[in-house]
Order: sequence, then C-alpha cells, then structure tokens
Amino acid sequence: MIVKERMMDMFARMRKLSGQGEGHGVHRLAFTDADWQARGYLMELMREMGLSLREDAFGNVVGRWEGAEPSLPAVMFGSHADSVPNGGNYDGVLGILAAIETVRSLKEDGFSTEHPLEIALFMCEESSRFGAATLGSRAMLGELSVDDTRRLKDKAGIALYDVLKERGLAPDMLGKPLYDGEVKAFFEVHIEQGRVLEHEKKSVGIVTGIAAPTRFWVKLEGNADHSGATPMALRHDAACAAAEIVLFAERLAAAEKKHPAVATVGVLQIAPGVMNVIPGSAELGVDIRSIDAATKKRVAENLKDAISEICKRRDVAFELVPISDERPVAIRPSVLDFLDGICREDGCSYMRLPSGAGHDAMHWAERVPTGMLFIPCRDGISHNPEEYAAPEDIVNAVRLLEKVVRAASRKNVTFA
Amino acid sequence: MIVKERMMDMFARMRKLSGQGEGHGVHRLAFTDADWQARGYLMELMREMGLSLREDAFGNVVGRWEGAEPSLPAVMFGSHADSVPNGGNYDGVLGILAAIETVRSLKEDGFSTEHPLEIALFMCEESSRFGAATLGSRAMLGELSVDDTRRLKDKAGIALYDVLKERGLAPDMLGKPLYDGEVKAFFEVHIEQGRVLEHEKKSVGIVTGIAAPTRFWVKLEGNADHSGATPMALRHDAACAAAEIVLFAERLAAAEKKHPAVATVGVLQIAPGVMNVIPGSAELGVDIRSIDAATKKRVAENLKDAISEICKRRDVAFELVPISDERPVAIRPSVLDFLDGICREDGCSYMRLPSGAGHDAMHWAERVPTGMLFIPCRDGISHNPEEYAAPEDIVNAVRLLEKVVRAASRKNVTFA
Repeated sequence: MIVKERMMDMFARMRKLSGQGEGHGVHRLAFTDADWQARGYLMELMREMGLSLREDAFGNVVGRWEGAEPSLPAVMFGSHADSVPNGGNYDGVLGILAAIETVRSLKEDGFSTEHPLEIALFMCEESSRFGAATLGSRAMLGELSVDDTRRLKDKAGIALYDVLKERGLAPDMLGKPLYDGEVKAFFEVHIEQGRVLEHEKKSVGIVTGIAAPTRFWVKLEGNADHSGATPMALRHDAACAAAEIVLFAERLAAAEKKHPAVATVGVLQIAPGVMNVIPGSAELGVDIRSIDAATKKRVAENLKDAISEICKRRDVAFELVPISDERPVAIRPSVLDFLDGICREDGCSYMRLPSGAGHDAMHWAERVPTGMLFIPCRDGISHNPEEYAAPEDIVNAVRLLEKVVRAASRKNVTFA
Repeated sequence: MIVKERMMDMFARMRKLSGQGEGHGVHRLAFTDADWQARGYLMELMREMGLSLREDAFGNVVGRWEGAEPSLPAVMFGSHADSVPNGGNYDGVLGILAAIETVRSLKEDGFSTEHPLEIALFMCEESSRFGAATLGSRAMLGELSVDDTRRLKDKAGIALYDVLKERGLAPDMLGKPLYDGEVKAFFEVHIEQGRVLEHEKKSVGIVTGIAAPTRFWVKLEGNADHSGATPMALRHDAACAAAEIVLFAERLAAAEKKHPAVATVGVLQIAPGVMNVIPGSAELGVDIRSIDAATKKRVAENLKDAISEICKRRDVAFELVPISDERPVAIRPSVLDFLDGICREDGCSYMRLPSGAGHDAMHWAERVPTGMLFIPCRDGISHNPEEYAAPEDIVNAVRLLEKVVRAASRKNVTFA
C-alpha cells in the first residue's frame, strides 16, 4: 500500500537535503554536495528495500529487484533528483520517490515479479549547471562523449569531466552505452510544469509525446530615426516588425488543432531603447514546440515566410540564426492504451496531454516502450520555490505507478 | 552676401572647439569648458561685427544691432551651441552661425535696419546634461526658477545652480524674465533631424508647428508560465499584449491625415526574457506627438482605450503611468505666409512641415510671432557624429534668413 505519511517524510527529507534553509527553494545543482547527499540518501532507501545497486561511470544509479526470470528485460522506472537553482521539491524528486514507494509497497504486499524491476536515478537532468539537459540519461545510452564532458563547463569554468573525476566517476568510459542490461519498458512520473491538468481538473495526465523545441534568433535591422521628426510613412521601426512577428507566431501555433503546437517569443530586445528614438534594431528568441514533427516544422516554416514578408514590406533587414532543432518523441499507441486501461480501470480522473518540457523519458522512448504520467502542480509553477503538488495527487500517481509496474512486470503483458 | 567659405570656416572652428579629436563627434555639454569656449568664440564674432552684447544671469547672450528707432521691438534670431554627448556639428550650431553670417552680410551690404536686430545665443538647449531641454530660453522668459536649478543635477550629481555659480552667473536672479527688451519676431534656422526634406527633395522647410510629446509608461503583468508546457489558449503573454499595443499605436498615428501625428514605442522591455518562459511582464514607453493638440489627444485616448481592450481580452493586468503631456505650439498663419512669400519669391524648393523635436523657438512662439526654417540633414541623422548638412543647403538657408531679417526689420512689415 502506498502510504501518504511515508511519502511526505521522504519529500521532507529531500527538502532538508537540498542545501537551503526553511522557506527557501531547493538548491541541488548536479554533482554538488547537496546533490551527492541526496543521491546517497536515495541509494540508502533502495538498499534498505533489498535492491541490488549498480552505479555507472556517470554516477547514475540502478536499483534492481531480481525477477523470477533474471534473463528477461527489466521494467525500469524512475527520474532525477537534481534541481535548478532555488527550485522546487517536486520536479524530478516526485519520480524517484514514487519509484521507491512503489517498490516498498510491492515488497510489503509480498509481490513477486516475473520481469526484473529497476529503479533508475538519473544524474544531471537539469541544464542549469552545464547548460545541457538530461545528461545522465544520455550518458547511460551512449549519447554523451568524453569530449562533451570536457566541453561542458559550469559558471565557474569547471568542466563536467573534472567534476565527474572529483566524484570518483569515470568520464573516460563515456561514448558507449553505460547501461548494461535490457529494458522491457520505461515509466516516469513527473509534475506537469504547466496548467493544463489544473485547468481541466484532472488528477493525472497520460503524456502523449514529448515536444522538443525548434529555436532560432531573429535579428532585425531598421532605422533608428528621431521619434518626433520621422513621419509614420518614412519609418523602418524594428519594434513594429518584431511586434508583427510575435503576434504571427502566436496565431500560427494557435491554429494547429490536430497536433497542438506552441510558439513563444521569450526573448525580445530592442535598441537603442530610449523614448525619443525609433527602435532601429530588435532581437527575438523564438521557441516552437509540438510532439508532432511535421506540425512543428510547418509552424516554423510558415513563421519564417511571414518574417520575410513582414520585413520586406517594412524595409527592415533580417537575419535568422538557428539555435536548435530537436526531434519530438511520440509515445507509442500500445503504451498509451496500456496506461489508459489502467487509469480507466482505476476510475481516477485523467486525460491525455503532450509534454512541452523535455524529460529523461524521451531518451528511452526512442528505444523502448516508454510511458509518462503527469500530476498537476499548482498554477503550473515549476523551477521555483513556489512549486507545489498536492499530497493526494502525489499518492494517487504512485498508486497508479504501482499498478503500471505490477502489470508491466507480467510476462503476458507486452507492448507493440 | 552670404559667403560659403566663411560659413565653413566657422563650422570648422566650432568643431575644433568641441573638445573631441578629428573623426569624433562634437562633445559640448552645456556649461562645460568646451561649451564655454564656444560661447566665447561666438561672442567674439558678434563683437567683431560691432554688435553690443548683453549676457543674462543664465549666461544667454544677446548681440544687438541698434535700429533707426531704438524704441521699436527687436527682430531676434539665433539658436543654441551646446550639443549632446558625441553629437554633430549642425544641431544648434547652424542656427547661431546662420544668424552671425546674416548680420555680417547685412553689415557688408551697408544695410541699415529700422527695427533693432538681435542675435540670441541660448544656453543649455539639450537635455543631455541636466535632463531637461531649452533651459536657456526658459530662463530668459522667466520659466525657470531658482528651485529648478537646485533640483536639476547632472550625472555627477552637480546641481545646475552650482554650475551656474561656478561660471560667475547669477542663478538667484531666476524666476522672473531675464530678457529685458521687446521682440517683434523671432526666427530660428535648424537642421530638420528627420528625413522628410531629403525624401521630398526640398532644400528648405517652413516649420508649421512644434510638436510636444505626450508620454506614458504601460506596465503589463501576465503569467510567466513554461513556454513548452502551456498551451496557447491558457497563456497570458505580456509580450503578445505589448506587441498588439505597439502595432495599435502605429496604426492610430498613421491614420491621422489632417494633422500628422507620430506614435513611437521606443522603450519595450519584457521579463524574465528567457527562451523557455512565457514573458510574464512587459514595460512600454509610449511617445505621441502632433502639432495639433486635439489630434495628439485623440491618438493618446484611443490608444489607452485599445490598451484596456487588449489587456482585458488577454487577461493581462495593466497600469498606465503618465510621464509628460506638453502642449504643442502652432506657428501663426501670418508668419507662415510671410516665410512662404520669401521662399516663393526666392524660387528655392521648399515645403511646409511640422517639427517633431522641441526647439528654443517654441518658447518664443507662445509670446511673439515666431518662424523656423529647417534644412535637410543626411539620412535624418542627428545627435550623432554622422550628422551632416550639405554646404549648399546651409548657404541657401542663410540666404533666406537674410531675406527674412531684411523684411522683418522693416516697420511696414507686421505680423497678425
């Protein structure tokens, strides 16, 4: 049985280990002492439950509950425990504590598993310290090279390579997969970090896919004329061109109905930025996401066409500078149906929704059947001390994860 | 006769006195040594021509050519000689050198004037040093108080009061008009600081009025949600609201045809300003100008209504903070007709146009018949080392000013 008080105790302990005092956010940057202590605590919990632990060269931890047939691939579930600076106590933490409570509950129930079960604790999921996200998962799957760890540095200029060495890890082993087993399916529970579930009044969400961003800079060059002495018809106002682009991006994304898309101009700077000069230049940072690659591409291409038209009409020069163009990950229909069945049978209030943020799960989704469950977080706030998930939603999600694991651990449950 | 070489020599001398080396801009902030030296040079030129000089308590200089009837009000013409930091050699300078060359030419011609003629050199026209413009004109007309001079400080924290004291001036005399005479009409020649004359291929412009800005801040407060995890329909994006406001301001000003208006969002800042967060707040600085008070008011009111509608529709909170709301100054029809007649008779290519920027002339325009002539400046650039006016346009304008002064100095020429 999932025990709420036990869960809350673990959350409280994790908060205490976060390196900040009461009333402050959770501050647990990857591989810092706070992060390493939290990792130690989580390993201790896994050991206490009788799991056998493996640590890989990047510091990722896998706690294994051997199955009736050890040669079968494992059902893996977990998340990360690092945080952004001054963040919340749920992003990542929920997923790893949910995994631990699930196993604890199953053990207490005297459950015996056919497929082996593995709890995964991924290191360095947040991009806050080294500017790149989900590094632990990538390392585990062979997608992070030794060179990458030399190139990636924190704000103090310390290379990830040296940070790993200092923790007694083995960055020179990177480049090939560190994970030495086989996975039947991977599951992750996470807070939504958005306001959809709250808005729709659902206690749980089945993630349909993980959107990856297409990002680019738009640099506009107009004329910085005198704002009093230049008639409207003679202007080449970079801020007006930027404004059209902002609104066009919004319209294009909103128009995608079959597969939802989002487009955000999160960065918008104009120069010279004084009251009596028409903005001569502007720089926009555009972020477009969808779990459907074709949808995302269409929005990006249409926006680029619009930018060209807007700038031509206004005689404003423009330059597009690509930042990233990652491929979105779809969750397989077989897994969606499986999770749907569990939720329906359970009777909880649920819905399907895409994930706009990236997660460790996206790397597994490309290789093995993978599922994600979201729970609401208050006002959609995350990466912030205000981050909050209700205990009842947490308990509900762990209850569902237990059902998911029970089912997935059976030999007769397969995923197409 | 207006002598081009003599004019160019004076411009070269003024540039040399500007405190910056070759290839740099003119750097002559009010009451600095560079400004004081330029003032000395201009006073010397006036004395050499036989004018009698008066200096007032603020440092403004009036050089008088006595008329046949000393009791008649004077025809005054001139401008300022201070500059913005790293500015150009024409803004202000043109007007005072044009005045000097005009008198020099009239003297050489053996002209004898009925009304007295007065060249005015106004101090501290630029707001660059003390954050307020046309201080010399204001002081001369009694619109600057002792308290004002104590309140206005430069970046180093030095009060205008102390700066005046240090130059041997008498700030304690301020508050009542410093100018001790009577003015029949005031004329000022200035570079346009815009691109209208260049665009219309006119060598001179008759200023129809001087637009004064209505300025206010717009502060927007939306929701800083995750840019990936928040569907378009659940957003309260402050940058999108700001974009609508920018475009609405543009449309409203462009729609004013009878009396032209301009509206500029020169300041536009969004927060937090990162790629993966929807802009939660935005701040816009709006500047609206017209030489017609009713037009300006209509644009401002309609824009405020639009802001309210936009923010209500988007559920974004807003606050409007007034900055300034100055009244525009119209040039009297009698003066416009007078200048029109002179230009028409001369045969030069000219047009009427409003001034979007403020000038010393605006303070005189409220009291006495006042006229302004603009000449083109390349690409409309001003307040910048790139500021440039063609020698032929300069000479042409001075030639016209001479005709203006000749005519205005006659007793039988009057202004309604």
